[in-house]
Amino acid sequence: MNRLENCRAILAGCNAQAMLCTSYHNKFYLSGLYSSSGYVLITQKQKYVIVDSRYYEEVRQNNRDAQVLLMTGEKTYDLLINGIIEEENIRTVGFEGDDLSYDRYRSLEKKLHASLVPIDINPIRAVKDAQEIETIQKACAIADEAYAHILNFVRVGMREDEVANELVHFMKQNGAMKESFDTIVASGVRGSMPHAKAGSKKIESGDLVTLDFGAKVGQYCSDITRTFAVGKAPDGELLKIYETVREAQQKGIEAVCAGTRFCDADRAARSVIEKAGYGEYFGHNLGHSLGINDHEDPRLSPTEEARMEAGMVVTVEPGIYVPGLGGVRIEDDVLVTANRPRVLTRSPKQLIVADKE
Amino acid sequence: MNRLENCRAILAGCNAQAMLCTSYHNKFYLSGLYSSSGYVLITQKQKYVIVDSRYYEEVRQNNRDAQVLLMTGEKTYDLLINGIIEEENIRTVGFEGDDLSYDRYRSLEKKLHASLVPIDINPIRAVKDAQEIETIQKACAIADEAYAHILNFVRVGMREDEVANELVHFMKQNGAMKESFDTIVASGVRGSMPHAKAGSKKIESGDLVTLDFGAKVGQYCSDITRTFAVGKAPDGELLKIYETVREAQQKGIEAVCAGTRFCDADRAARSVIEKAGYGEYFGHNLGHSLGINDHEDPRLSPTEEARMEAGMVVTVEPGIYVPGLGGVRIEDDVLVTANRPRVLTRSPKQLIVADKE
Repeated sequence: MNRLENCRAILAGCNAQAMLCTSYHNKFYLSGLYSSSGYVLITQKQKYVIVDSRYYEEVRQNNRDAQVLLMTGEKTYDLLINGIIEEENIRTVGFEGDDLSYDRYRSLEKKLHASLVPIDINPIRAVKDAQEIETIQKACAIADEAYAHILNFVRVGMREDEVANELVHFMKQNGAMKESFDTIVASGVRGSMPHAKAGSKKIESGDLVTLDFGAKVGQYCSDITRTFAVGKAPDGELLKIYETVREAQQKGIEAVCAGTRFCDADRAARSVIEKAGYGEYFGHNLGHSLGINDHEDPRLSPTEEARMEAGMVVTVEPGIYVPGLGGVRIEDDVLVTANRPRVLTRSPKQLIVADKE
Repeated sequence: MNRLENCRAILAGCNAQAMLCTSYHNKFYLSGLYSSSGYVLITQKQKYVIVDSRYYEEVRQNNRDAQVLLMTGEKTYDLLINGIIEEENIRTVGFEGDDLSYDRYRSLEKKLHASLVPIDINPIRAVKDAQEIETIQKACAIADEAYAHILNFVRVGMREDEVANELVHFMKQNGAMKESFDTIVASGVRGSMPHAKAGSKKIESGDLVTLDFGAKVGQYCSDITRTFAVGKAPDGELLKIYETVREAQQKGIEAVCAGTRFCDADRAARSVIEKAGYGEYFGHNLGHSLGINDHEDPRLSPTEEARMEAGMVVTVEPGIYVPGLGGVRIEDDVLVTANRPRVLTRSPKQLIVADKE
């Protein structure tokens, strides 16, 4: 199915004759427009893109299948949309309730000559096509290069935020438009905070360092986590934790397959961690879907009973976080296929000691 | 007035007995919490901060004036808020209609035992206190240093995005937590697009380059624009445009004073550009307010009749954009006082030629 057909399948399943896209991600997906401004309106008959003069020419060139309407001071978006509502006899317009602010909703409700109903159109983006997968693969390759670079760059005594700064600078020099999200660098005991931003803490010898980062290419994200040692390998329990997470991650990846329930992949990884006695220290989902947004649905959660489909891209990222001791997380981006999972991030997963004494 | 008194003044002016803050910026302003998670609830009697275990200790230490409530799987946020609603006999709760999504609004509406009304609480942040001004001043100083660095770094033949990458890397190395917004680098004819992101275009000798960027320090933004030449100075019309913008910006700055209407500052700058015959090529507002967000209200627009108050921080950023030729914009951050405006960004404004042939 192509993108418009997916939209129309959603329209057919709800009580609306048109969907109004207002989010960055869905407008980009349906028209190539990446802006807070502008609208994409999909009806059963036609695709409309409504933009101001800044975007008009480019959007027209990229949307030969659409009717592109120019908004101006006189021809405001509501006038243009009401024209379509009248022409196509639309009674109900679906809108993105998870994205549109209450105030903008109220404004639309007053201006448009149709009733509004919130609908979830994000599922149209769940299965990626060949070009999207290729773009995500590029974003993964840049993240892999950046990880290799950081292993050579990092030194005992460096601040976490210096490492993050170098990482992002390197990714941009190597083709990333930006980082997928604020880079996480958590060293030593800070590793027990799953989502610690890079801080001013200095990395000490013997610290485990968790890097969670990604590159954005053509608006598509990669998202990778590796945990490595600096100076010298840690001893005892942290080593056991590392190997447990690594095994759990491998089991999680192996469970990724078209037809499998998302919760079953979570279970495959989680049971390894539970058996090792760390169940209470793995407090988040196994992963999430990935695309234009760094976090997309469906999630690889204990309760998500939906089934994976070929062409979905998901993260597999188990972790163990022990307060006062530290933490380990390992994450790859994985393409769902009808057969073996295709792991898109390729960085090594054995425990590496950087800046070895 | 302190921050809570400002909140209560807003409550007194609307039909609500409590305000529920959900936005990053207002939660941070009122509690120091910078997260998508958590709530700040202000009533006439008390300030409540509702957070999960990740933030509880830190928020408690930073909010001695508040009652900090811990949300858990059992004590969900709606249970906690309904407890307050009952205890304080609250009938109506004001919420941030410009920030909260429709879906989250609907969920709150179903769960809370009070009626909800959208209110604008952003005005509490309009006048900055001494500590906020000091933080913005630091963010401005980093931007100034970065501009000086880029003038030495840029070379004919470099891509715009290379310049942007270096700029951001430098700011982070020198104390910025991140960039205020995606850096704008627009060279040559691209300068006629006021908000062009840095692209892959190479900078050519004779190009004017417009840099619009800022540093974020302690969550506060700076925002500066300079236009400079690379290789050699441009000739003819672009020089005239440069001097016109510079004069307009000076007039705009001189108009910034407590008691002045925002529209009058806009007029002071705009009339210089109109007199030079470029009125139609200055299509945006003169500027905006600045703080935790890179763009805050009130705006320095032709129609904003509110009056400036001492302690507000605004940008003054006139520009002239001629399609097919190029563009110039010059922007400073300016503190409103009862007397002379205090310009917080200090970078030179004469036309500089970098990498001179």
